[in-house]
Amino acid sequence: MRSFPDDTEVQQAAKSMLEASQFFHQRGWLLGTCGNLSVKVAPGRILVTPSGRDKSRLRPDDFLLVDEQGVTVAGHEGKASEELAVHQQIYRLTSARAVYHVHSVPNNLASHLWRQQGYVLFEGIEMIKGIAGKALHDQIFLPIASNHQCMTELSQSVADVLRPEVPAVLVHQHGIYAWGDHPDVARRHIEIFEFLLDYVVRLR
Amino acid sequence: MRSFPDDTEVQQAAKSMLEASQFFHQRGWLLGTCGNLSVKVAPGRILVTPSGRDKSRLRPDDFLLVDEQGVTVAGHEGKASEELAVHQQIYRLTSARAVYHVHSVPNNLASHLWRQQGYVLFEGIEMIKGIAGKALHDQIFLPIASNHQCMTELSQSVADVLRPEVPAVLVHQHGIYAWGDHPDVARRHIEIFEFLLDYVVRLR
Amino acid sequence: MRSFPDDTEVQQAAKSMLEASQFFHQRGWLLGTCGNLSVKVAPGRILVTPSGRDKSRLRPDDFLLVDEQGVTVAGHEGKASEELAVHQQIYRLTSARAVYHVHSVPNNLASHLWRQQGYVLFEGIEMIKGIAGKALHDQIFLPIASNHQCMTELSQSVADVLRPEVPAVLVHQHGIYAWGDHPDVARRHIEIFEFLLDYVVRLR
Amino acid sequence: MRSFPDDTEVQQAAKSMLEASQFFHQRGWLLGTCGNLSVKVAPGRILVTPSGRDKSRLRPDDFLLVDEQGVTVAGHEGKASEELAVHQQIYRLTSARAVYHVHSVPNNLASHLWRQQGYVLFEGIEMIKGIAGKALHDQIFLPIASNHQCMTELSQSVADVLRPEVPAVLVHQHGIYAWGDHPDVARRHIEIFEFLLDYVVRLR
Repeated sequence: MRSFPDDTEVQQAAKSMLEASQFFHQRGWLLGTCGNLSVKVAPGRILVTPSGRDKSRLRPDDFLLVDEQGVTVAGHEGKASEELAVHQQIYRLTSARAVYHVHSVPNNLASHLWRQQGYVLFEGIEMIKGIAGKALHDQIFLPIASNHQCMTELSQSVADVLRPEVPAVLVHQHGIYAWGDHPDVARRHIEIFEFLLDYVVRLR
Repeated sequence: MRSFPDDTEVQQAAKSMLEASQFFHQRGWLLGTCGNLSVKVAPGRILVTPSGRDKSRLRPDDFLLVDEQGVTVAGHEGKASEELAVHQQIYRLTSARAVYHVHSVPNNLASHLWRQQGYVLFEGIEMIKGIAGKALHDQIFLPIASNHQCMTELSQSVADVLRPEVPAVLVHQHGIYAWGDHPDVARRHIEIFEFLLDYVVRLR
Repeated sequence: MRSFPDDTEVQQAAKSMLEASQFFHQRGWLLGTCGNLSVKVAPGRILVTPSGRDKSRLRPDDFLLVDEQGVTVAGHEGKASEELAVHQQIYRLTSARAVYHVHSVPNNLASHLWRQQGYVLFEGIEMIKGIAGKALHDQIFLPIASNHQCMTELSQSVADVLRPEVPAVLVHQHGIYAWGDHPDVARRHIEIFEFLLDYVVRLR
Repeated sequence: MRSFPDDTEVQQAAKSMLEASQFFHQRGWLLGTCGNLSVKVAPGRILVTPSGRDKSRLRPDDFLLVDEQGVTVAGHEGKASEELAVHQQIYRLTSARAVYHVHSVPNNLASHLWRQQGYVLFEGIEMIKGIAGKALHDQIFLPIASNHQCMTELSQSVADVLRPEVPAVLVHQHGIYAWGDHPDVARRHIEIFEFLLDYVVRLR
């Protein structure tokens, strides 16, 4: 396996994911090796967290650089996150530059409470303005995908519900994928949607 | 843009806001670039947080010094917080020296649950004594303003409900503004009102 | 005002209270300058936190050494905590060497939900074994005192309900006082009662 | 008492338990000296936390090395955790290399809410995949043992309900024991089960 290129983009991406991981773990959103993060560092090149690692203890050289087929071209010796296929699906369908995925108790609760309806609706809440391009009066329909053991099926179920105007998807009793055109935006979207989900679950 | 004057008042204000930001973010009250803080460092001079920045990662030179018209006279190259107009309104109507604004799930819940009534009432709770000038037997009517996308309208709706004897205003599904005659007092008022709001929401 | 004696007992007490303060503040039990801690460092000598200070930012020289009449004999220039009278009452009535007092949302909720009954009952919960001298089968009646603005009245209401076999008292919508024969035991009792109160409030 | 052997296995085990303790305490799962951790460092040799210590302040030399009869052969001068008998029971009945035991409000709530049924059921939740060897479609029956003051009885009640295919047992109003073939796996299982228990309690 080749070592990382001396690449500022890769180093910045790793730094962003390390900081986000520690904050998310501290809030209980990345417990028990669950969740995964990725950043597109160049066309056809994604830097992604390794499979089955405690996200509170990631180090800068724990990431893998993969190509469009999911083949590791540099980095950590382990396996890339199993859910890399979902990240790649999101990169294909959107202009995302970073995709972050976390599990929280509120996002699991919301995915189950509104499962029949197929989406969680947010309206009239100031926090909506934290979503890129959104204003206070915008209604946000956060779609809920069905969950699958098979990654091909999971990727398809995410693709089926993804709405181009909303930078996130819930998966039933699984967690949230949120993205943005910069790692900081993906992190912000995670924080915003976790706030909104906690709010609507407690209001219910 | 001019650099900051070598001004102890400005440095102290920045230090207070940095410490408060980190504590508020850790508690989930400043998630996702939301919220904003300001300190009046001299007559007609307000030091304020920049627009659209992650408050957990502010640095000492990220603040802007603005005059009474909201024109930046020193500091960070970016834009001042959009909600500067609300801060200025509060400085005009009160003797505040610092205005802090945060979003929390409990303050959003309270602003919605008691919206029809127009205020949240606190009485008989010891924590009330943490509000400057208040005693245990004082009733505290925390007013709820309507929310607006337009900052002129939002400033007006805050002015319409502001009660001179209560150093805070809730905005519907938006958050709380709290103030005091010193940055430490503004921070204390945020902590006190967040406690009281969490309490009355859970008691309900 | 005299400086502190070069006294290991005083230094150890200050260190214990600093560590406890920071942990309690982080958990939201000492928000907004509320709460106060004291340790009896010698017969008739109590080291106590100052009045009106943010407990997350206490420093080693912020404590006051007071005598049995509550007169400051050494230490910080400010005033001792207003609630020193309650601490002194507890030292008189028990063999406590440390008295810690915190405000939390669960302890306020419990003090209000069981106010008519006059106590909160814990039974059959393993955590009870963390209370000095208690076994799993012991029933714990945590008394609830009425709250008063006047410290003489508050001290009396605490004395009226205090049970020699339980090292804590709740005050209605005010908080909990817990004590022990060592600062570590007082801290442990705060943690145990906060756990038990959170549990019974959520179970209800 | 003999000092520790210069043993990498012992040092690694102590390091894992120190890190886990601090994280668990911070989340409110090891409040007030409750809870205990152990790692099997060699056949018939268990490294275990001391009795009655604050787990947020453990130091590397605070652990005890005990043999199969529970006799201390090296390490800290104090007593081994009282619940060592339960840990030993689990090592006898399973292939565990580490056993972690914590008290949380959600695990106490679940142990009481589903007590009649005798187990808590998890199904269709992605977090299940974090349990060693489990897939999304597996149903997880987490057994609930009765609690006892006597350690021999407690060990027996845990043995009576333990299911070989589930690496954890709840004890009624006491807490959870979770284990794994490595300290990191035991820690992961604690995090996973705490997430699942918080989820099902809030969903109820």
